[in-house]
Amino acid sequence: MVDLNPSSSFSLQIIIELPNRPGSLASVMSAIASVGGSLGDIALLQRNLKFTQRELTVDTASIEQADKIIAALERLPRVKVISYSDRTFAIHQGGKIKVESKLPLHSQSELAMAYTPGVGRICRAIVEDPEQVYTLTVKSNMVAVVTDGSAVLGLGNLGGEAALPVMEGKALLFKEFAGVDAFPICLATQDSEEIIETVKRIAPVFGGVNLEDIAAPRCFEIEQRLRAELDIPVFHDDQHGTAIVVLAALYNALKLVAKELEAVKIVINGAGAAGIAIAKLLKTAGANDIVLCDSTGIISSDRHNLNQAKQEFAVAQKGKLADAMQSADVFLGVSAPGVVTPEMVYQMAKEPIIFAMANPIPEIQPELIYDDVAVMATGRSDYPNQINNVLAFPGVFRGALDCRAKAITTNMYWEAARAIASLVDENDLDREHIIPSVFDPRVANSVAKAVVLAAENDGVARN
Amino acid sequence: MVDLNPSSSFSLQIIIELPNRPGSLASVMSAIASVGGSLGDIALLQRNLKFTQRELTVDTASIEQADKIIAALERLPRVKVISYSDRTFAIHQGGKIKVESKLPLHSQSELAMAYTPGVGRICRAIVEDPEQVYTLTVKSNMVAVVTDGSAVLGLGNLGGEAALPVMEGKALLFKEFAGVDAFPICLATQDSEEIIETVKRIAPVFGGVNLEDIAAPRCFEIEQRLRAELDIPVFHDDQHGTAIVVLAALYNALKLVAKELEAVKIVINGAGAAGIAIAKLLKTAGANDIVLCDSTGIISSDRHNLNQAKQEFAVAQKGKLADAMQSADVFLGVSAPGVVTPEMVYQMAKEPIIFAMANPIPEIQPELIYDDVAVMATGRSDYPNQINNVLAFPGVFRGALDCRAKAITTNMYWEAARAIASLVDENDLDREHIIPSVFDPRVANSVAKAVVLAAENDGVARN
Repeated sequence: MVDLNPSSSFSLQIIIELPNRPGSLASVMSAIASVGGSLGDIALLQRNLKFTQRELTVDTASIEQADKIIAALERLPRVKVISYSDRTFAIHQGGKIKVESKLPLHSQSELAMAYTPGVGRICRAIVEDPEQVYTLTVKSNMVAVVTDGSAVLGLGNLGGEAALPVMEGKALLFKEFAGVDAFPICLATQDSEEIIETVKRIAPVFGGVNLEDIAAPRCFEIEQRLRAELDIPVFHDDQHGTAIVVLAALYNALKLVAKELEAVKIVINGAGAAGIAIAKLLKTAGANDIVLCDSTGIISSDRHNLNQAKQEFAVAQKGKLADAMQSADVFLGVSAPGVVTPEMVYQMAKEPIIFAMANPIPEIQPELIYDDVAVMATGRSDYPNQINNVLAFPGVFRGALDCRAKAITTNMYWEAARAIASLVDENDLDREHIIPSVFDPRVANSVAKAVVLAAENDGVARN
Repeated sequence: MVDLNPSSSFSLQIIIELPNRPGSLASVMSAIASVGGSLGDIALLQRNLKFTQRELTVDTASIEQADKIIAALERLPRVKVISYSDRTFAIHQGGKIKVESKLPLHSQSELAMAYTPGVGRICRAIVEDPEQVYTLTVKSNMVAVVTDGSAVLGLGNLGGEAALPVMEGKALLFKEFAGVDAFPICLATQDSEEIIETVKRIAPVFGGVNLEDIAAPRCFEIEQRLRAELDIPVFHDDQHGTAIVVLAALYNALKLVAKELEAVKIVINGAGAAGIAIAKLLKTAGANDIVLCDSTGIISSDRHNLNQAKQEFAVAQKGKLADAMQSADVFLGVSAPGVVTPEMVYQMAKEPIIFAMANPIPEIQPELIYDDVAVMATGRSDYPNQINNVLAFPGVFRGALDCRAKAITTNMYWEAARAIASLVDENDLDREHIIPSVFDPRVANSVAKAVVLAAENDGVARN
C-alpha cells in the first residue's frame, strides 16, 4: 500500500489561541509541517494585546496524522487548541442537497394555483396530452441517481444507506455543473430483477436514469434491460462516463506521441463495469488491438466461466498483466492500487501512455515512472491529467434532457468524448494537459451540444 | 352541478394597451365585470401621452368565461389586448420544485470533500454505525410523497404522470410550511403488493413516507403493511391529515354550540380514505354515535360485500343519507358535489354543524343554508373555515422527523388536532373562525411540538 499525501478529502479546521508576538505563528506552522500536515487557509478571528485567535485549515492523510497534528499543536508552549473539526464530516451534517420551491407561496391565490384546486387543471392537461408531463412538471430536468450500493467507489458492497452520501454528491455535481435536478435513489435490494422493476415503477417522475456504483456483471444486464424497457435515457456512469473521459484523454495523449488509435496496442486492466465499457467505446472509436485483463490476468479465449461481457473481448494471448504490457503503447488501469511496477512499464513500447485510474490509490504512483512515460494520468485531483467522470455525465444528461432523448446511443458517448478532447487547444496541449479541468466552464455545454447533435443524427431526439 | 365562482385557480394575466385618458381603465373594468371576471392586481407597465400599457390579473371560473373576458376586451374601441396567459399554467412550466446543493463547489478541495475521495470516509462511517445515516445524509429531513395516481384530488384515477403536479405541490408545501425536504414518487403501478415492495426498496433515502391520492380500500392495506414493515413514519395524508383537521375544527365548532363530542350524533358521508379515517379518529377521541354513509346510503350491518374498513363502522340503522341526517348534530361530508339538500339540513338537530368538504364543489353550497346552521365549513379557501390538510401534514412530519419517530401513532394525530384547535383563541372563536388560517405561522410548530410529545409518550421517538 503506497502512502497517501495529505489531501483536502481529510482536512481539519482548527481554532487556536497563540501569543500575539512575532514568531508564534511560525512555530505553529513548523509544528504542523513536522508531522506532515499541509497548511491551507489561515484566518485571523480576533486579536488583543496578548493573544490572537486563528482558524487554520490543515490537510492530512489519515486519522493518525490528524491526531499527531493536534498533539503537536498542544505540545507548543502558550498555544491553546480551542477546537478542531473534521471538515469533510462537518459539511456532511444533514446531507448535501435540499428540495426547494421554485414559486412564492405567500397568499391564498398562490396556494390555489400551485396546489388545489388550480393544480387539478394541470393534471387534466397531462391526462389529455401525456407529453405535457415534460412541460408542466419537473420530469424534463430530473434525473434519478440509482444505486444498490454494491460497488461504492472503491470501497465495495456497502448497501443502500451507506451509498447515499455518494449519490447526494452526484446530485450536487449534476446541479452545479449542468443545472440538472437529480435525486438519489438508494435501493434496499441488490437483486437485478428487483432493481429493474423498481426503477421502472418510479420512472414517471424522471427524464433520465443515472445508474451508479452497481457491481459488474449485474450492472450490464440492469442497464441493458432498462434501456430496452424505458423510453428515457439510461446511463451507467461507472461504465460510460469513465469510457467517455478515457477516450477524450486518449485522443489527446495519442496526438502528443503521434500515434493512431487504430494502430496502438492497448492494455486495459480491470474487467468490471468501467473496463468493459472502455473496451467497447475504444473499439467503436476504431481501436483494433485491445487486451483486457482482470485479477487473474489476460482474458484469453481458453479461460472458462467468463461472463458474456468478458467473452466479447477474449483474445488468443495468455498470461499475466505483465505479459500483456510487453510492447503495449497504452495502459489503462481501472483496477487496484499498486498492481503495476516500474519494470512492467519499462517493457512497454516507446513513449508509453499510462492512465492509472484506480481510486484513491492508482495502479502505480506517478512519481515512480514520471520520467519514463510520455503521458501519465490518474483519477486524482492532486496530480496532472485527472480522469474524472464529472467531465462527462453532467453534459451528457444536459444534452439528453434538452433534446428529450428517448435513449442514449454509443454515438452520443463518442461525440461527447470528442467534444471534451477538443477543448484542449493545440497550443495548450502538453503531457500535463491532455484533458480540461473539471472547473472549465465550457465543458458541460460543449458535451451537451455534441450529445444533442448525435441524438438527432441517431433519431432518438424527441425535440 | 353548482356554478363555480371565479377563483385564482383559474386566473388570467392580460397585457392591454389603452388610450391614456380618463375613463379608459373604467371601461376595461366594466367590460371584465360584465362577463363575470373578477379583477385582481392592476400594474402600470408604461405610459406615454397617447397610450398606457397595463397588466391585469383577472380571476375567472372556466375556460369559456376566460374566452368571454378576452372577447369583451377586444370589442372595446381603441383597447388592444397585447397578450394573455393562464397564470396557473404559466407557474407550472418546468415544474414547481428543484434540487439544490447546500454547499459551495468552486474548488478542487470542496469537490474532494463533497465527492470522491472524501465522501468515502462518510460512507465508511455509516457502515460502521448505520444510525449515522440520520446525521450525515438528507435522510433525517427527507419525506417521500408517494402516489399511484389512482385517486388524484377529486379527479379520479389519472395515473402516475398526471398526478405529479399534485405531488410536486405537496413537496412545495412541506418545504414552505415546515422546512421539510420532500420528493415526489409517482408510481407506474397500481398493484398494492408492488406499491408496498417499491416503497420498501426506496426507503433508505427517506426519513418518512407520505402516501397520497391512493384509492380506497387499497390505501388501507398499503398503509398498514408499510407501517408494519418499515421503521420510519408512514402517513396517508388523505386519511389522517383530513381526520386531524376535521377533529380540530369539530372541537372548536362544538364549543360554539356547547355540545360534547361524546354526546353528539355525527353523520359522515363518504366512506373512502378520508371518511374512514375521520370515523376512526373521532371514535378514538370519544365520539359514540357515528353513522357512516357511502353512495348507497347508510353503512348498515345487514349490507353485503362491505370491505373490512366499512364493516368496522356498520350500524343497525338502515336507509339513505337523508335518513341518517335526521336529528344529527354534525354532518361531515367527504363525498361529492351537491348531495346534500337544504331540506336534509332542516331535519338535523338544533344548531347543526356542517362540514361540506367535497372539493372543489361542496356537498351543499354554503349560501343555501348559511342562516340555518350554527357552523359551516368547507374545503374551499373562498369561504370561511377552510378544512385544509396543510394545517396538519407539514407539522406532523416536522415533529416525526425531529424526534426520529419510528412510527406514527393515533395519539400523535389526536395531539396534532388538539394543537391546531388550541390556536384559535377563545376571544377569536366564532362561527366563521373555528380553525386557524393555513398561513398562521404558529401552526406547523405547534403541531410538531404536540407530535413530538405524543411520540415520546408512545415510546416511538428515537431521539
